[in-house]
Amino acid sequence: MTRPASPLLPMRLSAEVAAAKERGAPVVALESTIITHGMPYPGNLNMARSVETIIREAGAVPATIAVIDGTLHIGLEEAELETLAQTKGAMKVSRADIAFAIAERRTGATTVAATMIAAARAGIRVFATGGIGGVHRGAELSFDISADLEELAISPVIVVCAGAKAILDIPKTLEVLETRGVPVVTFESEAFPAFWSRESGLASPLSLNSPAAIANFQKVRDQLGIDGGMLIANPVPEEAEIPREEMEIYIARALDNAKRDGILGKAVTPYLLQSIFEITDGRSLQTNIALVENNARLAAEIAVAMV
Amino acid sequence: MTRPASPLLPMRLSAEVAAAKERGAPVVALESTIITHGMPYPGNLNMARSVETIIREAGAVPATIAVIDGTLHIGLEEAELETLAQTKGAMKVSRADIAFAIAERRTGATTVAATMIAAARAGIRVFATGGIGGVHRGAELSFDISADLEELAISPVIVVCAGAKAILDIPKTLEVLETRGVPVVTFESEAFPAFWSRESGLASPLSLNSPAAIANFQKVRDQLGIDGGMLIANPVPEEAEIPREEMEIYIARALDNAKRDGILGKAVTPYLLQSIFEITDGRSLQTNIALVENNARLAAEIAVAMV
Amino acid sequence: MTRPASPLLPMRLSAEVAAAKERGAPVVALESTIITHGMPYPGNLNMARSVETIIREAGAVPATIAVIDGTLHIGLEEAELETLAQTKGAMKVSRADIAFAIAERRTGATTVAATMIAAARAGIRVFATGGIGGVHRGAELSFDISADLEELAISPVIVVCAGAKAILDIPKTLEVLETRGVPVVTFESEAFPAFWSRESGLASPLSLNSPAAIANFQKVRDQLGIDGGMLIANPVPEEAEIPREEMEIYIARALDNAKRDGILGKAVTPYLLQSIFEITDGRSLQTNIALVENNARLAAEIAVAMV
Ligand SMILES: [Mn+2]
Ligand SMILES: [Mn+2]
Ligand SMILES: [Mn+2]
Repeated sequence: MTRPASPLLPMRLSAEVAAAKERGAPVVALESTIITHGMPYPGNLNMARSVETIIREAGAVPATIAVIDGTLHIGLEEAELETLAQTKGAMKVSRADIAFAIAERRTGATTVAATMIAAARAGIRVFATGGIGGVHRGAELSFDISADLEELAISPVIVVCAGAKAILDIPKTLEVLETRGVPVVTFESEAFPAFWSRESGLASPLSLNSPAAIANFQKVRDQLGIDGGMLIANPVPEEAEIPREEMEIYIARALDNAKRDGILGKAVTPYLLQSIFEITDGRSLQTNIALVENNARLAAEIAVAMV
Repeated sequence: MTRPASPLLPMRLSAEVAAAKERGAPVVALESTIITHGMPYPGNLNMARSVETIIREAGAVPATIAVIDGTLHIGLEEAELETLAQTKGAMKVSRADIAFAIAERRTGATTVAATMIAAARAGIRVFATGGIGGVHRGAELSFDISADLEELAISPVIVVCAGAKAILDIPKTLEVLETRGVPVVTFESEAFPAFWSRESGLASPLSLNSPAAIANFQKVRDQLGIDGGMLIANPVPEEAEIPREEMEIYIARALDNAKRDGILGKAVTPYLLQSIFEITDGRSLQTNIALVENNARLAAEIAVAMV
Repeated sequence: MTRPASPLLPMRLSAEVAAAKERGAPVVALESTIITHGMPYPGNLNMARSVETIIREAGAVPATIAVIDGTLHIGLEEAELETLAQTKGAMKVSRADIAFAIAERRTGATTVAATMIAAARAGIRVFATGGIGGVHRGAELSFDISADLEELAISPVIVVCAGAKAILDIPKTLEVLETRGVPVVTFESEAFPAFWSRESGLASPLSLNSPAAIANFQKVRDQLGIDGGMLIANPVPEEAEIPREEMEIYIARALDNAKRDGILGKAVTPYLLQSIFEITDGRSLQTNIALVENNARLAAEIAVAMV
C-alpha cells in the first residue's frame, strides 16, 4: 500500500496537472531520464514536446516528472522542460536515491522506478515510457537486476512500454515479474515484444485488446486489494519496427564491441545503446521515438478509460 | 499488511462459509488447481469431497477457492464443486492473474499464491494444500521461482503442506524462504519433508509439536506486526510414504525422460508428475491423496486452535 | 509500512529507554548476536558496556535488543546484560523466528533483521552494528542471501555499519540493495568500505558528510512515503583498519582452510571469522571492536540530529 506524500515534501504540480487533478481529468506520467540521458539536445526536447502533445490530443494531461534543484516536479512548465533538456550532469534517480536528490537539492531525472513512486504520490495511475529496466544479461553471475521490476510489485501505476529493452535478458525478466506477481499484458498481441521489434520470441503471459479492458483489469486488482502496478507491453508500430532477426544481429555485434572495449558494469547499457545507434545508422533512435509516441497514445487512452 | 477486498469485488461466500464467518467458527481454505489440473475426473471430485469431510469432522468449515465465470468463490456449493471438477481449460491463476480471471469473466483455479490472497481477503487464516511451489531445479540459470514463496512473505495465511514438491530444488527453496523471512515449521519432526517422503535430507528450520503451539506462534507474529504467513510442513503418514531413497531414483528417471523428450519451461512440472505417476504405477497419486487429507486434518486443528 | 506492536506483545523497555521515549530523547538500538555469538565472555560484556557508554556520551540512550525467556527486551538493565553475556545456546533470531523465540519462551539474540523489526516496533529509528549480512560467496549456486537485505527494504531503521563483512560477496550485496531500492550511503568517503578495511574496491552508491545530512535524507524519504531503512557505511578508523590488500590474503587463506576442512552451509561464516582471528593473531577482533564503537558514535550523532 502506497503511503501518501507528506504536505512538507517539496513537490510541485504544474499548472496544467494541478488543474487536471482538480477537475478529476485523466493524467499520464512521463519519465525524464529519456530527456537527460536518452538523446541529445534538441532532439530530446522535440521528442518530449511531441509526446506531451500526443497525450493532450488523446484527452489526457501529461505530467513529466523530474527533481529540479531539490523540488519534485509533477509536470513541467514549458521553460522547465526546455532547461531540463539542456541540463548536463543530472543524477539518474531510482527508488534508492530519489529522496537523496531532493534532500541534497540536486537535479535528478527519474527512472521508471522513481517515476512510479512520484506518480503514485500524486495520485497518477498511468505512465508511458519506452522500455523498462529488467534483468541484465549475465545476471546469473552479476545479480544486476533493475529496481524497476520491484517497483512494479509495489507502486500502483500502470506502466506502458514497448517491452523490456532487447539488450536485457528477456526470459529472466519475465520470470522475475511472474515471481513478484506483476501482470504482464501485451496490447493486441499474444507475442511479448522486444522494444525495437514487435516480437521477442516469447509468448506474453496475458493479452488484452482495448484500453477499457486494461482499465477494468486494474480496477479489479484494486478491488482485490492487490498492491503494485502492471506492465502493459505495446508493440512498436509495424512501419517503425526493426524486425527481431535483424536486431539480434545488431545486438550481438554491440555485445562484441563492448567485450572488445572492456566495458563493464553500469557503463554497459549506454555503450550498447550507442553502439546499436551507430550500427543501425540512427534507425534505432527513430524506432525508439516512434514507440515512445505510440506508448503515450495508449497510456492516454487507458487513463481516459480509468476515469 | 493486507488490504481488505472492496465490497464491489465479485466475491461470493458459500452458505456454509458465510455462516461460519458469522458465528466466528474456524474455516480452512483449500486450493482448486489440484481439482482442475491435479488429477482426472472423478478422482479429483472424490478427493475434494473427502478433504472437505475431513475438515468438517475436525470441527472446521472447508472453503474451496476458485474463480468461476468471473466470480471469486470462497467455498463451493456441492453443484459448483461437481461442475468445477469437470471443467476443461480453466486458467491456473496466481498473484499476477487472479484479478485478470475475474475481470475477463473467466474460470480460474487458484494456485497456492492466489488461494492465499483470496483467503486473506475473506479473513481465513489457515489453508491446506499438498505441496507449495518453490525454486525450480536449474533456477540458477532460468530464474524460475514460484510466486508462492513471495506470497508467503505477504499474505497472513498459514499454509499446511507436505513440504515442497521433491521435483523442485528444495535447498534453494528453503534459502529463499529464509531470505524472505518466512517461518518454516515442521510438525512433530526435525526433518523437513519432501512431499512423497517424510524426509528431504535437510533439517527443518523450526519444529513444533501441537496445533496450539503453531496457533500461538502465529499469534505472536501478529502481535509483532509482522506481515505474511508461515509454512507448516506436515510429513506424509508413514504408511503412505514413498521413502526418499526410492523417490530419488524415480525423480532422476523422470528428469531423464523429460530431457529425452525435450520438455521445457512450464511443461516440465506436469510432465514430471505424470512420469512419476507412471513409473510408480500410480502409487505417487495415492501418496498425494493421503498427504492432502493429512494436511486438511492438521489445518483444521490449527484453525480450531486459533479461534 | 510498519505495523505497530500489539499491547499484548510481551515487550519490555528498560527504565532508561522508557524514560528516553517519554521525553522524546534520541535512542540507538543495538543487536545482541555480537554479544552471544560474536565474542567470548567477558570480552563481549566489556564491548557491550563500552558501546553503551559511547552512545550515552554522544547524547543518546542505548537500547540493546534481545529476547530473554520469551520477553522482547528493548534496552537491557545491567544485570540482564551481564546474564545475556554468559548465556550459552541462545537462538540467533531473524525475521522468520523472532516471534518463535517469544512464543516458545526462549532466549534469542537478534540479528540485524530482527533488531530492525524490534527497533521499529519501539519507534527507534537508528541502529548501530558491526557489519550487516549480505549475499554469501557462491550464492549464484546456493541462493544463500541474508534476510538483513530484505529487512532494509521494509523496516524504517537507519543501520550504521562498517560495510558488509568482507567474507561475503560485496558486489552482489550492493546489487541486491540497489534492486530492492535501499540507499547505501558511505560517511565521509566515496569508497564503500569492507568491514576490517576502509575500502572494498567499489564506489559507494551515495556519500554524505554529516549526521545532519543523513537525518535530512531520511526525513525526505519519510515525507515521500518510502518504506524501509537505509544503510550507512562508516569506514573503520584508519588507526584500527587492516588494509584491503592485507585482508584479501587472510580471507583467501581462511577460505582455503574452510575448503580443506570441508565446512559447509551455516558453519562457514563462524568458521571463517574464527580462522581470520587466528591468522591475524587476534587483530581482526580488535578491528571489529574499534569499528563497532565508531559506528555507535555515528549512530548516536544521527539519532541526535533526527530529534
Ligand atoms: Mn543495476
Ligand atoms: Mn515459474
Ligand atoms: Mn543464509
